[in-house]
Amino acid sequence: MIFIVKSTLKVLEKEINELTKSMTASNVYHVDTKAKYLGQHVLAEFFECDPNILNNAQKVESLMIDAALECGATIVQKCFHMFSPHGVSGVVIISESHLAIHTWPELGYAAVDLFTCGDKCDPKVAYEFLKNAFHSTKASFSELKRGKIDAACHVSETPFEIASQF
Amino acid sequence: MIFIVKSTLKVLEKEINELTKSMTASNVYHVDTKAKYLGQHVLAEFFECDPNILNNAQKVESLMIDAALECGATIVQKCFHMFSPHGVSGVVIISESHLAIHTWPELGYAAVDLFTCGDKCDPKVAYEFLKNAFHSTKASFSELKRGKIDAACHVSETPFEIASQF
Repeated sequence: MIFIVKSTLKVLEKEINELTKSMTASNVYHVDTKAKYLGQHVLAEFFECDPNILNNAQKVESLMIDAALECGATIVQKCFHMFSPHGVSGVVIISESHLAIHTWPELGYAAVDLFTCGDKCDPKVAYEFLKNAFHSTKASFSELKRGKIDAACHVSETPFEIASQF
Repeated sequence: MIFIVKSTLKVLEKEINELTKSMTASNVYHVDTKAKYLGQHVLAEFFECDPNILNNAQKVESLMIDAALECGATIVQKCFHMFSPHGVSGVVIISESHLAIHTWPELGYAAVDLFTCGDKCDPKVAYEFLKNAFHSTKASFSELKRGKIDAACHVSETPFEIASQF
């Protein structure tokens, strides 16, 4: 009887260990601090923004260009589009990848992507700049790492990893 | 003795249940199936692609346009850039948001974003189209949901959620 209970306990303990291990070693949240990545991709969500700014294509374009310059990027090309009845979509291609925006002025919401390569640009600077520029009272920042380089200088065949989220 | 073992078993069982619950109810993997989202954002990684295709700006542009049309999108604007010595960056703005690409021909790798709004487009179709077009032998697909709409028709102040990943 004691033997059966002991072995059941062992099975349960093993199960807990495996569950805990799979949670902490999750592909999604775990970023290998020693690894190199080709790109860092920030998904920024801006809530409660000024709808007049989000619905002004020229203003949005100008702010996205300023955000790129503020974070140290080199602008290569840009294209912006004003939707009817409202909303702006636009992209700034930079030497270090791209910045993209889609706005929903009627909801005070903008979804922004800041994709950069190398160490030259700091996407956090662009994020803070846009948060202020849009008068956003609440925002979220998720930094993903894409294109992990393995020891043999090949790209690891794994999806993105989340480096930080706040 | 048996009482102690039984209560230890109960504690262990409870711990397993809680761990399992917290894994399945995680903010990251859990998508509220009843909720509406403004956009779906697919992060696609294409590995072991044909480097000659990834280093041909005209070809990449033409394939990205075809991918947009294949998945049912309406093209609004586009801009593509060829880097020196290699690599292509480009964006197709569609009525339903955007498609973006950055290629590293020297590594056979392309990072693609397929951001769509509404139900008109199926980003999986664009993903499969590009996987074949780039002759990619391995690829990964992560579908994020952005801009969750709450019961009062406001945008929830939460970051993206992962809907599927393979």
